[in-house]
Amino acid sequence: MPAFINDYTTAAHPAVLEAIAKINRESKIPYGGDHHCALATEKIREATGCPEAEVFYLVGGTQTNQIAIDTLLDPFEGVVSAVSGHISSHEAGAIEFSGHKVITLPEHDGKICPGELQTLLDAYFADENLDHVVEPGMVYLSHPTEFGTLYSKAELSAIAEICRRYEMPLYMDGARLGYALACPESDLTLPDIAELCDAFYIGGTKVGALFGEALVFTKGNMPKKMLSRVKQHGALLAKGWLLGVQFETLFTDGLYKKVGENAISRAAELRAVLGKHNLPQAMNSPTNQIFVTLPDTMVKALAERVDFSFWEKVDEENTTIRFVTDWSTTSEMVRELDEALGEIGL
Amino acid sequence: MPAFINDYTTAAHPAVLEAIAKINRESKIPYGGDHHCALATEKIREATGCPEAEVFYLVGGTQTNQIAIDTLLDPFEGVVSAVSGHISSHEAGAIEFSGHKVITLPEHDGKICPGELQTLLDAYFADENLDHVVEPGMVYLSHPTEFGTLYSKAELSAIAEICRRYEMPLYMDGARLGYALACPESDLTLPDIAELCDAFYIGGTKVGALFGEALVFTKGNMPKKMLSRVKQHGALLAKGWLLGVQFETLFTDGLYKKVGENAISRAAELRAVLGKHNLPQAMNSPTNQIFVTLPDTMVKALAERVDFSFWEKVDEENTTIRFVTDWSTTSEMVRELDEALGEIGL
Amino acid sequence: MPAFINDYTTAAHPAVLEAIAKINRESKIPYGGDHHCALATEKIREATGCPEAEVFYLVGGTQTNQIAIDTLLDPFEGVVSAVSGHISSHEAGAIEFSGHKVITLPEHDGKICPGELQTLLDAYFADENLDHVVEPGMVYLSHPTEFGTLYSKAELSAIAEICRRYEMPLYMDGARLGYALACPESDLTLPDIAELCDAFYIGGTKVGALFGEALVFTKGNMPKKMLSRVKQHGALLAKGWLLGVQFETLFTDGLYKKVGENAISRAAELRAVLGKHNLPQAMNSPTNQIFVTLPDTMVKALAERVDFSFWEKVDEENTTIRFVTDWSTTSEMVRELDEALGEIGL
Amino acid sequence: MPAFINDYTTAAHPAVLEAIAKINRESKIPYGGDHHCALATEKIREATGCPEAEVFYLVGGTQTNQIAIDTLLDPFEGVVSAVSGHISSHEAGAIEFSGHKVITLPEHDGKICPGELQTLLDAYFADENLDHVVEPGMVYLSHPTEFGTLYSKAELSAIAEICRRYEMPLYMDGARLGYALACPESDLTLPDIAELCDAFYIGGTKVGALFGEALVFTKGNMPKKMLSRVKQHGALLAKGWLLGVQFETLFTDGLYKKVGENAISRAAELRAVLGKHNLPQAMNSPTNQIFVTLPDTMVKALAERVDFSFWEKVDEENTTIRFVTDWSTTSEMVRELDEALGEIGL
Repeated sequence: MPAFINDYTTAAHPAVLEAIAKINRESKIPYGGDHHCALATEKIREATGCPEAEVFYLVGGTQTNQIAIDTLLDPFEGVVSAVSGHISSHEAGAIEFSGHKVITLPEHDGKICPGELQTLLDAYFADENLDHVVEPGMVYLSHPTEFGTLYSKAELSAIAEICRRYEMPLYMDGARLGYALACPESDLTLPDIAELCDAFYIGGTKVGALFGEALVFTKGNMPKKMLSRVKQHGALLAKGWLLGVQFETLFTDGLYKKVGENAISRAAELRAVLGKHNLPQAMNSPTNQIFVTLPDTMVKALAERVDFSFWEKVDEENTTIRFVTDWSTTSEMVRELDEALGEIGL
Repeated sequence: MPAFINDYTTAAHPAVLEAIAKINRESKIPYGGDHHCALATEKIREATGCPEAEVFYLVGGTQTNQIAIDTLLDPFEGVVSAVSGHISSHEAGAIEFSGHKVITLPEHDGKICPGELQTLLDAYFADENLDHVVEPGMVYLSHPTEFGTLYSKAELSAIAEICRRYEMPLYMDGARLGYALACPESDLTLPDIAELCDAFYIGGTKVGALFGEALVFTKGNMPKKMLSRVKQHGALLAKGWLLGVQFETLFTDGLYKKVGENAISRAAELRAVLGKHNLPQAMNSPTNQIFVTLPDTMVKALAERVDFSFWEKVDEENTTIRFVTDWSTTSEMVRELDEALGEIGL
Repeated sequence: MPAFINDYTTAAHPAVLEAIAKINRESKIPYGGDHHCALATEKIREATGCPEAEVFYLVGGTQTNQIAIDTLLDPFEGVVSAVSGHISSHEAGAIEFSGHKVITLPEHDGKICPGELQTLLDAYFADENLDHVVEPGMVYLSHPTEFGTLYSKAELSAIAEICRRYEMPLYMDGARLGYALACPESDLTLPDIAELCDAFYIGGTKVGALFGEALVFTKGNMPKKMLSRVKQHGALLAKGWLLGVQFETLFTDGLYKKVGENAISRAAELRAVLGKHNLPQAMNSPTNQIFVTLPDTMVKALAERVDFSFWEKVDEENTTIRFVTDWSTTSEMVRELDEALGEIGL
Repeated sequence: MPAFINDYTTAAHPAVLEAIAKINRESKIPYGGDHHCALATEKIREATGCPEAEVFYLVGGTQTNQIAIDTLLDPFEGVVSAVSGHISSHEAGAIEFSGHKVITLPEHDGKICPGELQTLLDAYFADENLDHVVEPGMVYLSHPTEFGTLYSKAELSAIAEICRRYEMPLYMDGARLGYALACPESDLTLPDIAELCDAFYIGGTKVGALFGEALVFTKGNMPKKMLSRVKQHGALLAKGWLLGVQFETLFTDGLYKKVGENAISRAAELRAVLGKHNLPQAMNSPTNQIFVTLPDTMVKALAERVDFSFWEKVDEENTTIRFVTDWSTTSEMVRELDEALGEIGL
């Protein structure tokens, strides 16, 4: 049965597994001091066009968000996010658990609006008497967003400019960054992101790695004593080279790009299949997450033929479901979906 | 050059890597809900003789200690540990970072003494007016200890009895548990540990796994909402099956035991070599960490022939160094150490 | 110049100061173990009709909210509040600082709506897969609210019933509780509140005390080791009797009631004066906070004759200001306001 | 019955109470923005000879220690203290609760030894590989100590010099500072302390105030957003002027000095009485805390005639008790103690 459940169902791109196996018996310095981490960082510096980038490799996405935010903020500051942002809605309160308020803005297709951000910050910093209100200390956004949508270069530039004016870091959650970069609709390159953001992470877990995220600080702004702080968060991986070698591999011979491209191409095919069956997307996502709202009876029938994931109940009779593509999705799988949709009709 | 730096230098036992590769393309439920985690738990229940054991799989040791302690303690309680305990000395304050005091007892060969524990608890609980002093809420110990030493069954039983009397959990850090279990000098079996401790973890990172630790709750005492709490700590692995399949493999066909036995056998050979060269152990460790104090000149000469790790400067002229064996250590490597020691003389 | 700035401008009702002075040289047990605290608790038990009430005396409002919420919640839980609730908007992130998310509901005249609360809780607890979302662990409301409005007995009963069904504590912030109790429009008595809420605090700082709040647990549910937990929060007052003697005094001969009544009577006079000048209230507050929106020119002119507080800028030309009455407000002061409004006209 | 229980039994010096009563009806700016706080700060600047001193007024001692340490430290740093220091032993873990390790040094008459401090810091900062060990970020000491002993100017200077070299703040807990300053044996003046320490607090609660501590930053080093941070800790007093007016009073006409002098003079008389009865001090305290070890039978007999406090059980037959003097202790009370000792004999 073809599976479109998510992009962390099948584990790693085979090249990643092979690279790990290849260096298994090497003797390596622990805690990220090894040469694979160094090589990965060199390659990321090149790919981002940011020779001074500092990279810290971590295991997972919530961990990376929590550590980036907790170490970039002063203890009394909060982080601004769309109300639909992952840190606001789906990380079990990990940001608040580390002591910081998530200050929410409305979401528009999962994105924050530069104008609303500016209004929020203007209001806070214009008033000298806001000691009883949490100070916004940084801006969080995800790209692609939780709804698969993308910021344009103009949008990200506008947000970055506001952040610069208020001297606060702009941080991008790139859990699925590879799919944004491979998307023909996107005009944002990795060097653009490195220039506009003060920190961001290049997601590995959902983009071909076995696991791991590369947290990049682009402005000489990696918090001091970072290794100790990561250790305090319980997040320091003894065998740090496991992370290094994966990103070294992903950024060799364009593998990260290829992983993204396969998912995006298959997603395009999948969208075409949905269109053929007159099923409009529930969200305007150009990336590897495709949402569609169907009658519950059809959801049930489809579930017997294809694996997908439940997103949310829309009303008493309809449900939004999600299809996700990744490095392992094939055109054959999309064809099977086409057939399944044909069989169950509407 | 033969390497005895530590037991997390070479990555995983080949069988572990193969198992991961084998299931790479399987579609699996994320966050630990998969059948590999379930199978691993079945095997651990069997190996511990504890059919009701609950197991949560985590990525690293400090993370496991922090989460076990933070979720087993009430917010106002502290954890009792030997002053040399890993949580007290080498985890960058991760326990205090999560809000809890580490209440220290003296160390004796790295171990806590049941009598001193009893005196501490008697003093605290006899006095009704200790609201200004941190309440001891659990006991932490490591087995083997940070010095490679082992608790006897009598010692662990005495400590467990005190904990029962004061109704506080006894928690064992088993980062290197496999080496304790494989040690002929030890009379403590895995079922003994499961019976005497309320929680402990079976170390994978240092005992043949690529990474991962299995946190075991033996008395139906896994904290409620554990998955959310792990997520809040930033420690929930999306691809939880990576942990499940590793422990499934380690507890199939006695692999965990074999990994321990190879290290212990090579350590015995290594100790014999040291004895032959009249080099007494600096600590009375029967496990896979072997400490020896040498003149600095000899340390320098040896370092050109063998990889080991620096432990501590003893005085102006002498240094304690550490040799560690693991699944990948061979008798040939020990012979090379023998030759190296012969060449440099004393 | 008559002052209506707030209800913590003039310090304490004279009877409170006299009571403190009277016992100054008594030798008293520290940390709340004295007989004045015991007497105050007896009187509060009587006034609340709740003989089993447990009372902990604290210094200030944010402190009381932070401690009540942090000790009633499990570490992984969040607190539900109106978005306008004090803990959500004006406590500098003190709740998040202690690790808990404030889960917001819309405000209706500063209040939460039972139906919306039920929808939120139904959605959370109906779904078994919400481990990545913060669990609502208690409900916070203020009475009077931040806008001076009041819950009816029917509204509070509906909310309490929902909380009971989901077995979560209902907590009331009573910073200005005395003004609610003295308000003729209110049908909620102190015994009603004690019956419907699991915990609430009787505000002293803003209701005639020099400082201090009485945190009441009504269901035998005071968290264990409360004194230690308060100490950990840095909130344990060495001279606890200072709090005890104040509440003993406020609950003797109906002083707390009298303080409330004077403020409410003066507020009624003040509202009449505003009505006479055709100035409608900006919020429908029946208590001691009166909001009115005026043209900026009028605000400026009025500020030369009367002290009030700025609330918020409404638009380019208008501002909402706030008048507050308390135990020290006199009818003469209201008459002066009347004259001032007459002089400046509209 | 004469009472020597502690210096927070009788509440405030009458002049302090009168000052509060006098300004009760004044209209004052809340949260410390009032002119009494400003005046108090002026007077403290004068008394400390430190015109640039910044002062934040807080309610209690543990609160002040917790906030000073948490705001002066980076989140990853710990605070060095004598093992007998109040923050290490008697604050219910308030420092660890705020995330910081208390790094202990041995105590010598309750004091830390400059040489041992230097060894600790040298060892930490000499080694570049201590990322897994908590970084010492500041030094805490109390003056007088928990045992009533005092640092000499030479000792404090030596400690301050070490702190300067390592660029870490030196912080003094002055809960009983008034008694140190009034002690003829002490060569440390308030200007000395302001010069040598980076922050310290002038204790009010135990030195004549109703309550309150003045936290002084002497080097332009008050943490930014201090008011918000204090609010986050739940420690911001709405009626901040209550603190201001008390310190204004204590630093007018030498009241703080007089309070200290009375206690020290009465303590000298008390020590003479003990000497007359051949009762040697258990600790070498020259200040207002006097410790003496007596047979349990004598403790029991004395307790029927005089109020004192229990300190610790020394052995099966003897107990150390403590006498404390303050502004309200009279020579008559000491004479009554003399008689009581005479009556019970030895």
